[in-house]
Amino acid sequence: MSGIIKAMSKFRLAVVQLHVSKIKPDNLGRAQKLVKEAAGQGAKVVVLPECFNSPYGTGFFAEYAEKIPGRSTQVLSELAKDCGIYLVGGSIPEEDGGKLYNTCSVFGPDGKLLVKHRKIHLFDIDVPGKICFQESETLSPGNSLSIFETRCQLLVYPGAFNMTTGPAHWELLQRGRAVDNQVYVATASPARDETASYVAWGHSSVVNPWGEVITKAGSEEAVVFADIDLQYLSDVRQQISITTQRRNDIYSVSAVQEG
Amino acid sequence: MSGIIKAMSKFRLAVVQLHVSKIKPDNLGRAQKLVKEAAGQGAKVVVLPECFNSPYGTGFFAEYAEKIPGRSTQVLSELAKDCGIYLVGGSIPEEDGGKLYNTCSVFGPDGKLLVKHRKIHLFDIDVPGKICFQESETLSPGNSLSIFETRCQLLVYPGAFNMTTGPAHWELLQRGRAVDNQVYVATASPARDETASYVAWGHSSVVNPWGEVITKAGSEEAVVFADIDLQYLSDVRQQISITTQRRNDIYSVSAVQEG
Repeated sequence: MSGIIKAMSKFRLAVVQLHVSKIKPDNLGRAQKLVKEAAGQGAKVVVLPECFNSPYGTGFFAEYAEKIPGRSTQVLSELAKDCGIYLVGGSIPEEDGGKLYNTCSVFGPDGKLLVKHRKIHLFDIDVPGKICFQESETLSPGNSLSIFETRCQLLVYPGAFNMTTGPAHWELLQRGRAVDNQVYVATASPARDETASYVAWGHSSVVNPWGEVITKAGSEEAVVFADIDLQYLSDVRQQISITTQRRNDIYSVSAVQEG
Repeated sequence: MSGIIKAMSKFRLAVVQLHVSKIKPDNLGRAQKLVKEAAGQGAKVVVLPECFNSPYGTGFFAEYAEKIPGRSTQVLSELAKDCGIYLVGGSIPEEDGGKLYNTCSVFGPDGKLLVKHRKIHLFDIDVPGKICFQESETLSPGNSLSIFETRCQLLVYPGAFNMTTGPAHWELLQRGRAVDNQVYVATASPARDETASYVAWGHSSVVNPWGEVITKAGSEEAVVFADIDLQYLSDVRQQISITTQRRNDIYSVSAVQEG
């Protein structure tokens, strides 16, 4: 998901690294409380983790799934409006037409739904002796890219990496995406819960367009903040002019289907 | 540049982190000596650095430029044949039709030229107070992608990063490319020369498809080795099935013009 630059050149972003329990009302209540705290500290964009209202696991998705709009997205909509923020609602298990999706809803400061993004690349992994997990056992993939207009420009990844992929790839991939695209990248993980069937890595982060980690949570529940500076982003793009050097005469990257 | 898997499942790769002086015959002589040493240690693929026969700098390219075929590529061809190796000849300043290019020549074990790749994205950077360097002042960009068939599968980047981009991006980018594509990545830098006008970072490396640095030079002249295991590459691709999850119905990455 990405946004398009408008007027505001600096703003505060917050990532809520929520502890996700098996009790949905508790998850929603704690999300409300922490998002409000983040907004109280000046955050204009707040990001929740992947699967923030439900334990992450193929055994849980059906039980916790909701329609969109539904109870959880209603909570998000009101929260965005009450706080006057952009709220990236991590993801929730969504049920639609008998299928389950891993779906992110984004709400604007007026409480309106800006975009609904169903995860396209389901997470299937089988590292012998370490981890075997197949989202595709129960989830269906989405079929569109998702872009929404905001006053900022960043890539946002709600994601629940684990104790195998976390140390290996979590920070690397976000720093890579930041430098490749010369953008800010924000990631939101659930807090680590050693008692869960799927143990999330945590370490929600924000990376700047030079590839530096400018804020990073530990493994526990936390709200972390980053001041996003779009003038700095513009400076980096001038310093190494990747965007003007694209060779669309030689290769092409394109959307086949617009979200 | 990339190759295509055939029969061989393990082979040794060497990166020659050459010290590059202002004396071209010395550069060629030392390259010969070190490539032979690498082959003597069992390397089947040997990689030389960007601009290995000439100091790296816009003030040097015209003076050191050659035709291809020419003296330097003749040396490379004979070396590849004598040693029975694939030799990725880093790059040299090439002159053709009054224009200058930053050009990599790759030779097979029979001494034949497999591919000639002219750098597509010229290196232009302007970080105030740190570094200003514009390849595009004197060089012209190439106009094609370059793929050649070998028995191995890897991405090879001869590159001369500097004391600003080196610590910030050198390792990050190669680890990123390795994980994004689930391939081995080899990079070859000139050795660091603090007296040069452009001070190369060094730290030539090989990264495996899981994103781990498996060999890495310091800043001095050195030959470093890595044993490339294509079965391991295949295992990683099964563990996280990125390649089978591509959604060509939603986005497309394609070559407009084949090299």
